[in-house]
Amino acid sequence: MKQTYINELQDKISEEVTLKGWLYNSRSSGKLVFPQLRDGTGIVQCVVFKGNVSEEVFEVAKSAGQESSIIVHGTVKEDARSPIGVEIDVTDLEVVQNSTDYPISPKEHGTEFLMDNRHLWIRSKKQHAVLRVRHTIIKAVRDFFDSNGFILADTPIFTPAACEGTTTLFEVDYFGDDKAYLTQSGQLYNEATAAAFGKSYAFGPTFRAEKSKTRRHLTEFWMVEPEVAYANYEDMMDLGEDMIIHVVKAVLEERREDLETLERDISVLENIQKPFPRLHYDKCVEILQEGFEKGELENKFEWGGDFGSPDETYLSAQFDQPIFVHHFPTAIKGFYFEIDSERPECALGIDLLAPEGYGEIIGGGERAMDLEYLEKQIENHNLPKEDFEWYLDLRRYGSVPHAGFGMGIERCVAWMCGIEHVRETIPFPRMLYRLKP
Amino acid sequence: MKQTYINELQDKISEEVTLKGWLYNSRSSGKLVFPQLRDGTGIVQCVVFKGNVSEEVFEVAKSAGQESSIIVHGTVKEDARSPIGVEIDVTDLEVVQNSTDYPISPKEHGTEFLMDNRHLWIRSKKQHAVLRVRHTIIKAVRDFFDSNGFILADTPIFTPAACEGTTTLFEVDYFGDDKAYLTQSGQLYNEATAAAFGKSYAFGPTFRAEKSKTRRHLTEFWMVEPEVAYANYEDMMDLGEDMIIHVVKAVLEERREDLETLERDISVLENIQKPFPRLHYDKCVEILQEGFEKGELENKFEWGGDFGSPDETYLSAQFDQPIFVHHFPTAIKGFYFEIDSERPECALGIDLLAPEGYGEIIGGGERAMDLEYLEKQIENHNLPKEDFEWYLDLRRYGSVPHAGFGMGIERCVAWMCGIEHVRETIPFPRMLYRLKP
Repeated sequence: MKQTYINELQDKISEEVTLKGWLYNSRSSGKLVFPQLRDGTGIVQCVVFKGNVSEEVFEVAKSAGQESSIIVHGTVKEDARSPIGVEIDVTDLEVVQNSTDYPISPKEHGTEFLMDNRHLWIRSKKQHAVLRVRHTIIKAVRDFFDSNGFILADTPIFTPAACEGTTTLFEVDYFGDDKAYLTQSGQLYNEATAAAFGKSYAFGPTFRAEKSKTRRHLTEFWMVEPEVAYANYEDMMDLGEDMIIHVVKAVLEERREDLETLERDISVLENIQKPFPRLHYDKCVEILQEGFEKGELENKFEWGGDFGSPDETYLSAQFDQPIFVHHFPTAIKGFYFEIDSERPECALGIDLLAPEGYGEIIGGGERAMDLEYLEKQIENHNLPKEDFEWYLDLRRYGSVPHAGFGMGIERCVAWMCGIEHVRETIPFPRMLYRLKP
Repeated sequence: MKQTYINELQDKISEEVTLKGWLYNSRSSGKLVFPQLRDGTGIVQCVVFKGNVSEEVFEVAKSAGQESSIIVHGTVKEDARSPIGVEIDVTDLEVVQNSTDYPISPKEHGTEFLMDNRHLWIRSKKQHAVLRVRHTIIKAVRDFFDSNGFILADTPIFTPAACEGTTTLFEVDYFGDDKAYLTQSGQLYNEATAAAFGKSYAFGPTFRAEKSKTRRHLTEFWMVEPEVAYANYEDMMDLGEDMIIHVVKAVLEERREDLETLERDISVLENIQKPFPRLHYDKCVEILQEGFEKGELENKFEWGGDFGSPDETYLSAQFDQPIFVHHFPTAIKGFYFEIDSERPECALGIDLLAPEGYGEIIGGGERAMDLEYLEKQIENHNLPKEDFEWYLDLRRYGSVPHAGFGMGIERCVAWMCGIEHVRETIPFPRMLYRLKP
C-alpha cells in the first residue's frame, strides 16, 4: 500500500493509510500502546488496542525501542487533543528494524555528546525545526533574487588568491605543483559576473580558517552574495532590506510551527518592517561613546575602530529593527572598497546588524571603480598584483559603479530561530575542533 | 533617471528610457552611428543621428571602443527587423569609461586564450546563453525537490573520510593537527538526513582530484543529491525521470532564445518524454556485444566491466530518450550498494545516460540496509571502520530501505545546451591545469 506522509493526514480523515517512519516515543497502559510515529514531515500518535490486532503485533508494538523503524497501517481519526488534529487507529504494525539503546534518550545530554551524534541528533524536534527554517530561508533568498532579475553565477571554491588577507585561508595541494585556497568570498568573481549579467548572485559554501571558538563562527559556512552593476551602496541597503523582509515573511508563513517548537518570540519577527534605520559610522561612534559614559559599555569606542561583539550588541539594542551601518573607516576595510570622495577616510561599506545581539548578518558596499586607485590599493595592501590582473581588467574594460553584499546563512538562521550558537544551524557543522561526523 | 533594462523595453514603446550597459558592437555610416548596447538582460540596437545630438555626443558615440561602459538616453521605437522588436532613438549618450583594445575581438580566438580571459569571455553571446541555461536548470531542479516534499540539507564540504576511495581526494590541512578531505559526494550524510526528514536533498560543489583531461571532467563541479527513506532503486528511476522532464520543460519554456543562440537542435529536447527506457545491465552487455560484432565498437564488452565513454555513447545512440541502466555488477560499485538478493553479483545501482553521447548524468541506487553486510563490505573495501561508525549507526538505529542519486549539473547543462566541453558550463571552471582566473 502506498505510503502516506504525516503532513497529509488532515486530508484523509476516516481513510485507511500506511505510514512509514520511526518510533519517536511510546507509552502503554494495560490493553493500549500509544506509539508516536515520526516520518520526517511530522509526528502522529498511534493507538494500538489489544482487541484490534494480533497478540504478536501488540507485543511488538509494546516492546519496540526508540527510533525503531516501523510501518503502521490504520485508520485516520479526528482528535481535537492532537497538535495535528488526528491520530491513527492501528490495524497492523510492523517493525522493520528494532532499535535498542538509542544514544539520545529523552534525558539531557551534553553538547559535545550531541555533536558527536549529530547524524542522530538531527532527528530530534528542536534540531529538526531549525533545519526546516534553514531550508525555508535558503529557498526564500533564492526566490527573491531569481524573481528580481538576478542570474545565479556561482563562483569557484578553488581560488588562486585571497580576497581578504591570507591568514585565515585553507590551503589545498593542487596536483602537487600548485596551491589552491578555499574561497572566503565570491565577491571578486561576482564583480565579473555582474559586468556580464547586470545583476548576478552566488550562493555557496565559503571557508575561514579562523582559530576562534565563538558562538558565531564556523570554518565552513554558506553565503549568498548578490552584485549589481550600475548600483551604489545605498542601492545595496534597499536590496538587503527587501531581501530580509521577503525572508522573514516566508519564515513566518511557512515555519510558524517550527518557530513555536523553538519557543521563538515570534512577535520580534512580526515587527520587522521597512525602512531599517541607516546609521553613519560617525553616529554609531557617538552612540557607543554615550553608552560608555552611561556605564553600559566596558570600553570606550574610538573613531577608526572595528565594532566588537559588545559594540554590535549595544548598537542593535537601541533599535527594534535590523540596522544598517555605512561609511566605515577606509583603513579597516578591504582594498576594493569605493571611498567617499569628500571624506576619503570613509569607505562606502555597509553592514547590517541583526537585532537581539545576533551581530553582522550582511556585509558589503560599493566597489572601487578606478583602475589607478585599485592598483595603488593592491600595492598598499601588499597583495600580489599579478594575481589581480584579471580583476583589474574589470576596470580596464567597461568599468562601472557597482556594489554588492554577502549574507551569512547560518547567522541569519540563528537569528530567526532565536538560538544561541550557529553550530545548530547547519546539518553538519565544521569548527576548530569539529570535523566529525 | 531610473535605469530600464533591455528585457523590459517591449513594454515601453514610445517611452523615454535610460539604459545602462556596455558597448557590444558598433558601426557607423555618415551621419549615423549604430551602437549595440548590452546590459546583461539583452542586446539592443541604438541609433545616434547626428542631427539629434550634440557634436560631442556624436563623436563619443562614434569612437567608443568595444565594451566601453555607456549610458544611453532615448526613445523606444518599434522595429520589426530587430530580434527584440525595438530599437532606441538616442537623445543623449554618455561614456562612463572608454575601453580600448578589448582582448576578445569578434575574430576567432584559441580556447586557452579565452579561458585565460574567462572573466571577460562570459560577456559574449554564447557563453552568456550557456550560463543562463545553467541558472534555469539549477532553479528547476531546486523547485522540483522543494515542491515534492524534500528538505534541503546541505552536506559538509570538509569530510574526515572518503565516500568512494581515496585516490581522487583533495586533502586540506585542518589547523595543523588534522587532515580534512573535500567532499566527493554528500551521499553518506544524505542517508542521515533522509532518516531525519524522510526526503532530503543536498546541492553543492563536489571535488575530484582526477588527473583526467577529458571534455567531461572538472575538478570542482556541482551536484544535486536527493535521498529518500523507504524507497528502492525503482523509485529512484521514477524520481530521476520526473526531475529530468521538469528541467527540460523549464529550459524549453524560459531559455528558447538562448538555445537558439547556441544553435541547439531544440527538437531533441522537445521529444524527451516519459517513460525512459530501463535496461538491465545484462541487456546492455548484449547490445554492446552485438555492436562489437557489427563492427560498430572497437572493443568487445564483457560482463563485469564498467562502461567506457564509447560504450555509453553506443548505448545511448540506440534510443532517442535518456536511458536508465540498472543492476550493475556489485564488484565495480561502492561498498554501500544494496544487492539483488537473488543475484548477489548484481547491485541495485542505477545510472542515467543522456542522449547524444553526453554520458552518465545521474548515478545512484538503493543503499545496503543491513548492519552486518555493511561491516563486511567496509572490511572488504579496506576502509577504516572507525570513520564509518556514525554511518553504521544509521543501520543500528532504525534502519530502513532507502535510495538516492546524484546528478552532475555541468554535464546536464552541456547536454541541454548541446555543447562539446563541460568547461563552458560553469562560470569559472577548475581543471587539471586550470586554476585561474
